[in-house]
Amino acid sequence: MDWPESPFALPDHASGSETMADAAREIVAAGRRMDRLGFLPATAGNLSRRLSSDRFAITRSGGHKGFLTEADVIEVGLDGQAVRAGDRPSAETLLHCQIYEHEPEAQAILHGHSLAATVLSRFVRDTIVLEGYEVQKVFAGQTTHTAAIRVPVFDNDQDIPRLARNVAPLLNDMPAGYVIRGHGVYVWGPNMKSAMARMEGLEFLLACTLHERSLAR
Amino acid sequence: MDWPESPFALPDHASGSETMADAAREIVAAGRRMDRLGFLPATAGNLSRRLSSDRFAITRSGGHKGFLTEADVIEVGLDGQAVRAGDRPSAETLLHCQIYEHEPEAQAILHGHSLAATVLSRFVRDTIVLEGYEVQKVFAGQTTHTAAIRVPVFDNDQDIPRLARNVAPLLNDMPAGYVIRGHGVYVWGPNMKSAMARMEGLEFLLACTLHERSLAR
Amino acid sequence: MDWPESPFALPDHASGSETMADAAREIVAAGRRMDRLGFLPATAGNLSRRLSSDRFAITRSGGHKGFLTEADVIEVGLDGQAVRAGDRPSAETLLHCQIYEHEPEAQAILHGHSLAATVLSRFVRDTIVLEGYEVQKVFAGQTTHTAAIRVPVFDNDQDIPRLARNVAPLLNDMPAGYVIRGHGVYVWGPNMKSAMARMEGLEFLLACTLHERSLAR
Amino acid sequence: MDWPESPFALPDHASGSETMADAAREIVAAGRRMDRLGFLPATAGNLSRRLSSDRFAITRSGGHKGFLTEADVIEVGLDGQAVRAGDRPSAETLLHCQIYEHEPEAQAILHGHSLAATVLSRFVRDTIVLEGYEVQKVFAGQTTHTAAIRVPVFDNDQDIPRLARNVAPLLNDMPAGYVIRGHGVYVWGPNMKSAMARMEGLEFLLACTLHERSLAR
Repeated sequence: MDWPESPFALPDHASGSETMADAAREIVAAGRRMDRLGFLPATAGNLSRRLSSDRFAITRSGGHKGFLTEADVIEVGLDGQAVRAGDRPSAETLLHCQIYEHEPEAQAILHGHSLAATVLSRFVRDTIVLEGYEVQKVFAGQTTHTAAIRVPVFDNDQDIPRLARNVAPLLNDMPAGYVIRGHGVYVWGPNMKSAMARMEGLEFLLACTLHERSLAR
Repeated sequence: MDWPESPFALPDHASGSETMADAAREIVAAGRRMDRLGFLPATAGNLSRRLSSDRFAITRSGGHKGFLTEADVIEVGLDGQAVRAGDRPSAETLLHCQIYEHEPEAQAILHGHSLAATVLSRFVRDTIVLEGYEVQKVFAGQTTHTAAIRVPVFDNDQDIPRLARNVAPLLNDMPAGYVIRGHGVYVWGPNMKSAMARMEGLEFLLACTLHERSLAR
Repeated sequence: MDWPESPFALPDHASGSETMADAAREIVAAGRRMDRLGFLPATAGNLSRRLSSDRFAITRSGGHKGFLTEADVIEVGLDGQAVRAGDRPSAETLLHCQIYEHEPEAQAILHGHSLAATVLSRFVRDTIVLEGYEVQKVFAGQTTHTAAIRVPVFDNDQDIPRLARNVAPLLNDMPAGYVIRGHGVYVWGPNMKSAMARMEGLEFLLACTLHERSLAR
Repeated sequence: MDWPESPFALPDHASGSETMADAAREIVAAGRRMDRLGFLPATAGNLSRRLSSDRFAITRSGGHKGFLTEADVIEVGLDGQAVRAGDRPSAETLLHCQIYEHEPEAQAILHGHSLAATVLSRFVRDTIVLEGYEVQKVFAGQTTHTAAIRVPVFDNDQDIPRLARNVAPLLNDMPAGYVIRGHGVYVWGPNMKSAMARMEGLEFLLACTLHERSLAR
């Protein structure tokens, strides 16, 4: 296997012509990077890449997402059903469907479980506010550190359709993605590199916020 | 040497036909992964893989478990005695014997010494409760974050048979493994990948719990 | 690609004969190292290398600085303008111009965004004092741990010329570089290895200071 | 260059026949490992290997100890003078001389600057006590976690002969090595693997102790 260690190490390629092989390559690289950063303990996380207006590639249920191979990536429709008989998408695939449907610009979605997101989300009610950080300029439409970015925190729920219904009302107002309590973050972008940069930016700022919380007590 | 960086990078192989060479390969890979994650300082830890109903492969006493070679893995019986004359199992081999005997499903056992397990176990009495975390679904039989998983904490003891006798009464009720105070964790699974995923899951949750403890004081 | 993992792994070469290819090689290596150390989340940071008395090489705007290629490094003048038509320097290039102009000895400048610099700078007013650490001997002109080194902290500002005007009065008195609040550090040196050593030294001491702050509360 | 990533990855070789090439190889490997573990920020640390009863190999002054080559290792006598004209040992070489002279069994000495050693040593008076940790069995003569190991902490001093005179009275009673305040640790062992294991053990226990201190306040 000769997989790159991150999507940032992949050459740019023409958008719109995404094949399953290209998508798998990006997903495998993103998984490796997220593992290096500690965002994918055990079998946590799922990663996807849009293939067309109504299909996307996503990691298969189970297994460690830091050591993926092409065979661990399956093709699904926006209804969450696998294109190929026998492939088994994870329950959380529906949260990817929701984002791709709501955001036509979204081309890649990353979900991970970091310590910062897990712990911090158990100590806040329903929102984490990021303000005064240069790094927040990585998020969609942000041009200054003086803005206050609201990251919604939703209660975890094993009933994914119900969780999705709770997420829906706020989908228009989450430039940095969202957090599920005790679980992890969801971020996306117009390509895999951008989604990964936002993942790194959000996790960095959650780690800063968590650290500041312990100093400010 | 061309050892994979984790058991997750190993191809699946038919269970039940485990050879010493296969077992050693999995153990070496698990050691490398655990070292990368910081679970094997100095000469800490020991790792094993079942070979049959009454024999298993385990790391030799002494040496660093993050840089193992095939020669560092020896074959022992469920009585803890080396199959080959001259091989010297570590004293803690008996704790592996106990688990393999009690749990016919256990095929791999991992023991490491992380900072989180070491420190947290010195601040609790006899149990760590994990509740409300998505990652806890990695443990045997768990399907929801709302369950309360009890991880027993036993006092450390250089008398391993006595330590094993303390562990015994709770062996039926530890889906996430157990912790020895100031020492480390024991986890197992139906194959090496699963044992490693549970190791990562347990350590992640111990790190979260330790962090939360410092915030909640 | 065969890039070294840090500038410390590069062979020494004759100073004064720096070509764009050599400069790019050093910058790519410094970016890899800073990423390994966690100083370059998302698209943060920018890195430069002087080419002559009035030109330097610097990372292009945007993109992840841990996975640079030669094509991500552009040539600019001390006025901050790109030498090659179409190249787009980042706004912060002006801060590099200011340092190269003020410090004829400066041959390399590194800017990163670490958690320690980001969090600590939000908890102090205008100066971080480093005193009693052996590592502080890495900074220009320092020979003992008993000195008190003052690291100025400036408010972040999207108006870079205005930020530069605030930095200017203190440029003569910052042996360890400076910090921009909620943003990151700027360090430099007489060659890339030295700049990188100072970056590691400053970040180590900021991390120590932040840790001590949590113990001393 | 094809250097191993740690001394643990080196094959064992006959002791007593140590050549400069073998010694350099072990030192380079130890430097890489210590860098991975974060013990060698900037140009910190120095590493040595005994060659005979009255000579040893040690890292040259200056430079990053995580990216050494054979040319960065020089030969010195127990008087601290370089064997080859022009080689410049660092001032701290005298602390290595002292240990090799006092401990005929010492074959390798490692000195690094970790965050835990640096911060913790600034919060204690003159001793750090390690007790109740399984990992402490890695130190010379230790067989149980119930022992209380005393690690002396000495004030830092740019006058190395004076610092050595302060260390001298306690040299017989430091099974885990010693700490210089705001500076770092010194550990040694009967071979490089053992010295490295003790370095990892001591640093792990200092990190645990520092963490516990923040919980216990």
